[in-house]
Amino acid sequence: MANKRVGKRTVKLQNNPTIISAASIVGPKEGDGPLKDYFDIILDDDLYGEKSWELAESKMVQTAMQVAVKKAGKKLEEVNYLLGGDLINQILPASFAARELGVPFFGIYGACSTMAEGMCLNAMLIDGGFADLVLSGTSSHYCTAERQFRFPLELGNQKPMTAQWTVTGAGSVLIAPNEKGPKIRYITVGKVIDEGIDDGNNMGAAMAPAAIDTIYSYFNDTKDDPNSFDIIATGDLGTLGKQITEDFLKKKGIDISNVYTDCGIEMFNLEEQDVHCGGSGCGCSATVFAGYIYQKLLKKEFNKVMLVSTGALLSPTSTLQKQTIPCIAHAVVIEND
Amino acid sequence: MANKRVGKRTVKLQNNPTIISAASIVGPKEGDGPLKDYFDIILDDDLYGEKSWELAESKMVQTAMQVAVKKAGKKLEEVNYLLGGDLINQILPASFAARELGVPFFGIYGACSTMAEGMCLNAMLIDGGFADLVLSGTSSHYCTAERQFRFPLELGNQKPMTAQWTVTGAGSVLIAPNEKGPKIRYITVGKVIDEGIDDGNNMGAAMAPAAIDTIYSYFNDTKDDPNSFDIIATGDLGTLGKQITEDFLKKKGIDISNVYTDCGIEMFNLEEQDVHCGGSGCGCSATVFAGYIYQKLLKKEFNKVMLVSTGALLSPTSTLQKQTIPCIAHAVVIEND
Repeated sequence: MANKRVGKRTVKLQNNPTIISAASIVGPKEGDGPLKDYFDIILDDDLYGEKSWELAESKMVQTAMQVAVKKAGKKLEEVNYLLGGDLINQILPASFAARELGVPFFGIYGACSTMAEGMCLNAMLIDGGFADLVLSGTSSHYCTAERQFRFPLELGNQKPMTAQWTVTGAGSVLIAPNEKGPKIRYITVGKVIDEGIDDGNNMGAAMAPAAIDTIYSYFNDTKDDPNSFDIIATGDLGTLGKQITEDFLKKKGIDISNVYTDCGIEMFNLEEQDVHCGGSGCGCSATVFAGYIYQKLLKKEFNKVMLVSTGALLSPTSTLQKQTIPCIAHAVVIEND
Repeated sequence: MANKRVGKRTVKLQNNPTIISAASIVGPKEGDGPLKDYFDIILDDDLYGEKSWELAESKMVQTAMQVAVKKAGKKLEEVNYLLGGDLINQILPASFAARELGVPFFGIYGACSTMAEGMCLNAMLIDGGFADLVLSGTSSHYCTAERQFRFPLELGNQKPMTAQWTVTGAGSVLIAPNEKGPKIRYITVGKVIDEGIDDGNNMGAAMAPAAIDTIYSYFNDTKDDPNSFDIIATGDLGTLGKQITEDFLKKKGIDISNVYTDCGIEMFNLEEQDVHCGGSGCGCSATVFAGYIYQKLLKKEFNKVMLVSTGALLSPTSTLQKQTIPCIAHAVVIEND
């Protein structure tokens, strides 16, 4: 068996891939939420000076990546690879950002699991000795996502109470081998799980089985103790999906209830900000991680965390063709020395 | 510098990632072309028994992956990771295939560069000791791509002579460390290059600068001799893009003309099959590699090859918003022992 594998699904990194910096940028609504003090940049205009929301989203992820590099005292020319993707068709925002950044680029697609997908690949590229410095990150934008996946905003459609609110935001991390800072210790890569939900306004229920499968696999592979974590954060399951995940994991013998939260719940004051089940989108776990969680790690208020970004791999075409929603979740375990 | 890097952009694999099998499946038109004897499966119906072209495309890539695993005498449960993606919004075909295959999944997006992108990541996951067996592959389908990127087929629109024909096909490779078979020796990952072409019917000219940049970087990094290759194959530049690539590389001091071909040109009898500048789509370089090139490697008729899959990272939205076309190309160098 390959020497870095633990159990069936988990990899143990051995060369201390270190998150040497992280950066986040969010829209005005997110900047009004409970995590506002943790973000690097809060926009007061979600067009960000661009002509379209798609270009604004691209500028957001480009900026998050530039800020992450700058914070680490590095230069873009020193970065060997860039890993990025987002919800938008043909990952337009990430591709356009990669064009401006000029760093060799791997485009990835994991819907809202993209932050953790990028961190898994990033950690392995660093750990395997293939690179000295790798950037990864992702974005989402309420206005680009709504018109692509649901309805034109101008229609003012109502949403059911199971719906979530796509976060306008972008987050990025810069990883290097063996430096000072929080280390990625383990990754557990998700399988595509589909339990038959076909309602694009009930993503929490659709994605929960993928989160359950990945979190269960990590604990099954490593025999680690859930209570050794300061926080286990799923990506964007919202209140309904979080409850499902917690309950089903408990039935499978894994009780994470003491340390479990969801980035979609952390992002907003749910009732006051009228976001129904919580935040969603690639930018949700990206900014909650790169903002809130990473800063808590630096301050040693958290010393061991698991990020489990969750993605719904549906498309408008698959929805129209009456297909159910395949989902995925990737886990990254990060520890201070 | 990370110990596997050569020059600025290239990685030298050190643990013999070996392509232990490859599989290809194509549609009826591709099965009428000059490479018909090299494909594993030729469909006589491009719906492949499914209700939609998208589901047919998904079944094609799923089948190519299953055949690759079977040919190697392995089982799907032994495969640690699956890397896949395609042109279709939210990579629906790859995601649905991953759901059926049940292997931990990294979704990737590199447009028509996806075959080489997957092989680059695949080789590093194997080389770094993260996995014992990794599948990668990709697909395209004339009918899914045309209606998404251009016009409904039912309109019968004419195409300009610079246009190419999206290949209906899927290809897959299975990679393991240190086995018998062709080895991946070097990879050079592409930057996103955009020289200002905005015509989605002239992809060859749009993508050529990315191919030039990547091929030049490989030779600049390694000081390798182009004439040591049996074949250097770009992905889907077609006749026009191939000419641009060859000419500009010669001006930069790299003469690949003796060994250079393009998968889009190899795939069809261009005039007789009325495909204008040649084949295109993720499935083009995927099936030409997994069919023709891989079999030539096994027979030792080729002993050193470079695959440079090329991708145009446009979207229908970016085209409507009058943006130019960012492009990318990734190179993989494969040798027999």
